[in-house]
Order: sequence, then structure tokens, then C-alpha cells
Amino acid sequence: MAFRIFATTDIGKDALQRLRDKGWDLEVYDHIEPPPRALILEKVKSGVDALITTLRDKIDEEVLAAGRQAGLKVVAQDAVGFDNIDRAAANRHHIPFSNTADVLTDATAEFAFLIMGAVARMTWPSEQMVRERTWSTWHPYHPWLGDEVTGKTVLVVGTGRIGKSFIKKAVGFDMDVLCHDPAYQDRKFVDSVRRVMKVRRDEGLAARGQTIDYVPFEEGLRRADFVTLHVNLTRPGEADEPTYHLMDERRLRLMKPTAYLVNTSRGPVVDESALAKALREGWIAGAALDVFETEPLPADSPLRDEALKLKLRLFHHFASAGRATRLSPDPDVGMAGRAVQAVIDVLERRYDGDPKKMPYVVNKEAF
Amino acid sequence: MAFRIFATTDIGKDALQRLRDKGWDLEVYDHIEPPPRALILEKVKSGVDALITTLRDKIDEEVLAAGRQAGLKVVAQDAVGFDNIDRAAANRHHIPFSNTADVLTDATAEFAFLIMGAVARMTWPSEQMVRERTWSTWHPYHPWLGDEVTGKTVLVVGTGRIGKSFIKKAVGFDMDVLCHDPAYQDRKFVDSVRRVMKVRRDEGLAARGQTIDYVPFEEGLRRADFVTLHVNLTRPGEADEPTYHLMDERRLRLMKPTAYLVNTSRGPVVDESALAKALREGWIAGAALDVFETEPLPADSPLRDEALKLKLRLFHHFASAGRATRLSPDPDVGMAGRAVQAVIDVLERRYDGDPKKMPYVVNKEAF
Repeated sequence: MAFRIFATTDIGKDALQRLRDKGWDLEVYDHIEPPPRALILEKVKSGVDALITTLRDKIDEEVLAAGRQAGLKVVAQDAVGFDNIDRAAANRHHIPFSNTADVLTDATAEFAFLIMGAVARMTWPSEQMVRERTWSTWHPYHPWLGDEVTGKTVLVVGTGRIGKSFIKKAVGFDMDVLCHDPAYQDRKFVDSVRRVMKVRRDEGLAARGQTIDYVPFEEGLRRADFVTLHVNLTRPGEADEPTYHLMDERRLRLMKPTAYLVNTSRGPVVDESALAKALREGWIAGAALDVFETEPLPADSPLRDEALKLKLRLFHHFASAGRATRLSPDPDVGMAGRAVQAVIDVLERRYDGDPKKMPYVVNKEAF
Repeated sequence: MAFRIFATTDIGKDALQRLRDKGWDLEVYDHIEPPPRALILEKVKSGVDALITTLRDKIDEEVLAAGRQAGLKVVAQDAVGFDNIDRAAANRHHIPFSNTADVLTDATAEFAFLIMGAVARMTWPSEQMVRERTWSTWHPYHPWLGDEVTGKTVLVVGTGRIGKSFIKKAVGFDMDVLCHDPAYQDRKFVDSVRRVMKVRRDEGLAARGQTIDYVPFEEGLRRADFVTLHVNLTRPGEADEPTYHLMDERRLRLMKPTAYLVNTSRGPVVDESALAKALREGWIAGAALDVFETEPLPADSPLRDEALKLKLRLFHHFASAGRATRLSPDPDVGMAGRAVQAVIDVLERRYDGDPKKMPYVVNKEAF
């Protein structure tokens, strides 16, 4: 049976080829910009069996209701997040949707670590100086110095896959780790990290004993030199403790004036106008952001204040953008491979045709 | 006795205050640029007891001969490197000189790690895109992707203090480590790292077993995804295997086309025109450089080729420029503290007045 699939962008040629190799009819909206909403609706109404989507495509009640009518069998999201997909509507219409968790864990965690280092060690202004030829001479502290990362204390907010991957990296930098997670405390992981810390100490690879502990959020904010966010975005009403504006004025004020904030999760987890104020007024030392309340970052964002340039690093939602992570056709390596595999699992009715058993389906509760 | 000390720059006010607190006569050349050579000579001839210097100050036969005549007792260098100091001349004139090894180990190693990540993950062009407002939309691979660091193989050339600190950090990123050091192989360290790698595997913190081995240089160059340089600069005649232009055209050609080069050691260790060619012609994927054959980097350097901008990161000899690392008055923490302590050790004739016993003196062989 020749299934029809519509991909709202080219998620990766090698991975998509796996669908074509099955003789299926794949249409790719091969533009830089996402397709207009009307086109997605039109494709769904025309009876495509599968949609491959990105965070840019709003998959809401209207799309999903039309899909149910016309035979849409799966929405495969090329991302770990899915705040663009109306989960309740997908459940009502019994349409499974998948994401690409796991494969982007290390890429995202390493990016968070690297941009944490970039803002602390001032690599961006350093390169600007070289390129703009304002580098005049070596000097012990002119025009500025950065802050060391090694040996400092980091608060990891959200100890899911990405948070834990971040922690593993922090251990090699002799860091003490504070953990906070409102949903779930992985005590076994913490014990494993402690055993690694102990061996590092015993072998003389760490100058002192390192520590890792779950702490109350506010205590962590007060103690940390770095705060890194690895939570899902939940808006008021969607969770007991929604993460929308988790880092607001009150919590930013709890941080040390020498501390840095890192966000690679979702933009709305940070109140950007409060953050701009925190940076302007020196409540915290700096921030590195890969995600924003509105993306692309608007021209009039307070984060574009020239006065913040030395202490604020800005990236274009790029944390998962490793070549293998994005494009590999292997579902154990690449987001593209995983999204394509989710389509195959559903259309070929693998796992007894039961979405509950399919590894990449998110809304298992609907089946 | 009120000693006289001339510091060629303000290496750090808190640290220098320790000399003033002793009632000693400290003169600081408090400018961004280094003093003219004539001024250093004049100060030495006028009978200063100690010089505090940076890599910018040429301390050669003429300066040292004048120093011997006029009573110069110590040259305290505010750096770990000392290629500006003529060691043979210092030895002839029996003038001890010191450096600031150890205290900048972690700052330098972490900077090397961070800029390795910066070039691989393309953080600089990402920020340029946000700031220049050319970020139009999220896309799976447009306009480019970076390469992951986690799980890759790194060749660490030079396994002294900084190389070993780098390796400890790489372990947390699930990397395999290849080591090369022409002078000394620290087998005990390698065994310790192996034990940490084993515990990471046993505890499920690493998905697979990691490896670390000393390898022949050329084998390492062929196998590595990243090559990072942590060697002293030695010119032909100064060592059996001088490190001047260690990375020349022949060796660059041995690297993988997907591999990256990182240099935080000394500029002349890399043949810059060969490197520019390697990048232009795609022998390697990219490079991150904190040091250059001529500093500041000349306006006409081939490394400024606009075509190389995506794959070449340039920094202003900034690797040790952490606030505490540069300025702390504590000799166990800060370069400034260590340089000042070296002056105190010599002038107060600590360690039985024997430079051989003094921890920060470099040219112990002269005493």
C-alpha cells in the first residue's frame, strides 16, 4: 500500500529516503520557511497518512479534526519539544504523535555547557576584538576578564535526560552539582555520580571532594555560580508547577550577583524583560540563551540592548544542531531517523499496531 | 631593607599591595601598552632588586647583564610561558626567574575545551546571525550545522599539567583520548583516567567503554576528531624535537577532513600559512586559536580571510584570563599572587636563600 506522507520541511534527505525506498509517496515542502497553515490543512484534508512536522507548525484541533476525518494516522515531530501540538486534541481524535527525545540529549546538553562557558569566559567579545582589530596588546586584565567554570557550583533545574547529560559533563570540570526537579528525583543517578566523584578524588584527578545533591529550588538559586534550565514548557493550568516564567524577577533576584543563567529549554521559561533588568542592574553577572519567548528574536527585544552585549550570549535555537543529531537516518542517532521511524512504526502497524507500545509515540495515554 | 621593584604592568592591585605592605618601593608601569625596552633597561641599570614582567617584555642578554651589574635579584614572569626570557643568559648571570605554572592550568584547559566546542558547534556564527538579524526561522539544517563533541576522539599533544586538565574534562564528555608527548608519558595518570572511565561505564553514565592511550603522533593525527596543543614553544636548536611549526603542512594533511585543531599553547607551534591553506582547501574542518605567530594578529594575516569565518575561531590570547586566575593575591590561585610570591621568596631569602628550593623559580639548574 502506497502511503502518502507530507513533510513540512526537509528534515534530512538520507532519512526521508527510507520512506521513498518503501515505495511510499512522500511530498516535502522544501523551503527555508515553514509552509502556510492553509497548506498543512489542505494536505491533511486531501488524505495524507502521515505528517512530519517541526516546532513551527501549529497542529491544533482544526488540523487534527480534519486529519481524523481524512485518515491521518500519525504526526511525527522533528524535535523533542511539542508545544506546537495540541495534545488533548490529538488524544480526542486518537492520532498518535511522536517526538525525537534521546537522540538530541547529548547535543543539547553539550551546547548548554559550551554556551555557559562562552558567557563566563567572554569568548564572543574576545573574538569581536580580534576581528574588529581593537586587540592592541596582551594585558593582565584590560579590557576585561572572564570567570572560571572549573570548580564552581552549578544548579541544574530539571534532571531529565538532558539535565543528567549536563551533570555528567560538569563532573569532569570539578564542579559541585545542585539538582532541582519538581517532578522526579533520580536518586540512583545521584548515587552513581557520587561514585564517579569519589574515584576522581581517590585517583587524584580532583583536588577536593565534589558534591551532588537535590536541593530546594530557592536554596539552589542562592548557592549556584551557574543555573542551567532543562525543563519542559508548561503554562498555567497545564501543570501543578507550570514552568512558564519559572525564572521571574523574584527568582532572578535570589541568584548571586556573580552568577550566570543558561537557557536551552524553551524561551517562555524565562521572563525576558525581568532578565534584561537583572542584567542591566547587575542582579546577576550574565546569561546565555538559545531560546526566546518569541523566535526569531524580535528587533525590539530588550535583550538587544547594546549595554548588555558583554554579558549576554544569544543563539538561534541551535542547541540540537549537530550534524549527526539532526540528520542521521539511524533512529538511535538522528532526529530525522527517529521521526521517520515513528512514521514507519505507525504506518506498518509495528508493535502489534499499538501506539502505546511504540517507542517514539508521546501521547500513549490515548490508546 | 626597602627593596625596589619595577613591574612592567599592573598585574593585579591586591597582589602588588602585598609588596607595598612590606614597606618596599614598588613602581608600576601602569599603562595598557608595555613599557619601551629602554625604560626596562633604565630601571634595571638604576638598581631595582626585582622585575615583574609579562610575555611582552624582552628580557635578554643586555637586560640580564645590566641586571647582574646593578643588583637585579629576580625576574618574576606573570605567565607560565617565558619565551621572552633568555634562559641561558639568566643562567650565565645567575639571576633566577619564575613563572606562574599551575595556577592557570584549569583556566587554560577549560578555555581550550570551550573554544574547541565553539568552533565545532558554530556558536560564533550563530550569535552573529541573531545579532545581525539574519535569523529568519528554525530549520533542520539551514544555513549550517555544527559537529558534536560528545563521544568523539581527541588527541592531546603534550600531557603536562594543562594537557592533563583538558583530558579530565574530556572524560565527562564521553570522549576517547589519544595522548602524545615527546618528552614524558605519565602512565600513572593514564591508569587513573582508565579507572574513572571504568566506573562511569559500570555506573551507566557512559553508554560504552571509553579509552585513553599514548599513541605515536602521526597515528593520533590520523585518528582524532579534535587535536589540541599543550606544548611549550621550542625553536630549532632548543630541543631535540622542537615544537616550532609542529603543525606544518605535512601534519595538517594527516588530519581527517572532519577534524578540528585547537591551539592555546604558543602561536609559532602552528604554521599559520599552512593552516590557512588547510582550511581553505578543506584538509581539516576548522580551527580555534588563542595564540598566533605574531600578536596582536596582523591586519594582513591569512587567518583573516573572510572565506574562513565559519570554520575559524580567533581569540586574543585570553585562555588564562579568568578573574581569579589572573588577579588573586593567593599564590595557590592567582598568577599575580604567584609572581609576587616569587619576588618575596627571593628578596627575603626564603628557602635558605636557595633558588633551587624555591617553588616558582624556573631556571633551578643555574644554582
